[in-house]
Amino acid sequence: MSFKEPAAVENAFYDAFRELDVDAMQNVWMDSLTVSCIHPGGELLQGYAAVIDSWANIFAGSEPPQVEYRLVQSNVNDNLAVHTVEERVSTGSGARRAVVLATNIYGLVDGDWRMLAHHASLPLVEPRNPSDSQPPLH
Amino acid sequence: MSFKEPAAVENAFYDAFRELDVDAMQNVWMDSLTVSCIHPGGELLQGYAAVIDSWANIFAGSEPPQVEYRLVQSNVNDNLAVHTVEERVSTGSGARRAVVLATNIYGLVDGDWRMLAHHASLPLVEPRNPSDSQPPLH
Repeated sequence: MSFKEPAAVENAFYDAFRELDVDAMQNVWMDSLTVSCIHPGGELLQGYAAVIDSWANIFAGSEPPQVEYRLVQSNVNDNLAVHTVEERVSTGSGARRAVVLATNIYGLVDGDWRMLAHHASLPLVEPRNPSDSQPPLH
Repeated sequence: MSFKEPAAVENAFYDAFRELDVDAMQNVWMDSLTVSCIHPGGELLQGYAAVIDSWANIFAGSEPPQVEYRLVQSNVNDNLAVHTVEERVSTGSGARRAVVLATNIYGLVDGDWRMLAHHASLPLVEPRNPSDSQPPLH
């Protein structure tokens, strides 16, 4: 399966995550020693084998999660694309939910886009609600 | 001050951090609504003003930290560069230390490179030492 634009890889990446499909995840990533992945709170993983192994470990024994994503920011040129994405992930039952911020990097090789890097992190602070900073009215 | 390559921006970025120099930090970033910054454990900040404000807040009242960085991975083309960087940050006294993983994005506009995005996260897990997974011998 080939991807003619970064958005198509991104869609396939989140589909693979949603369906816990290791084969699909293998197809999303560029088969290169230079790819890298940082899971939330995780160390830097480098190289195709280490990255795919990490996803296989995450998928093993998991229930398919609900995964929604929203592209927040995009910088793209001829053969490199940077997407900032807000992910909303919840367990199948919906008992646990998380908002994850991700930087997804895609590269174009031989006419096909593939994922080069995924850096995900979990915001531990809440954005301040501007109204909270107003003095109380009473 | 202009930067003729991504590495020069990166160097200036970590110098600004090391010296808590808001003016230098202002010069590092592209003055655009599209820049973004995620501090470790932080929310997504978007736009030049919000990003610079966040650094000014971090710098205010801080002692200059020790900051070392190591470029781990680089994907660069004509006008976009993606760097994966391992940062070693410690307080001036050395009492607190952290290893931070960062994805730094640089863009070329009018012949000058500037920072477009900085996504930093704190690994909460230690990499497993392969020797630890061996069964004890005695």
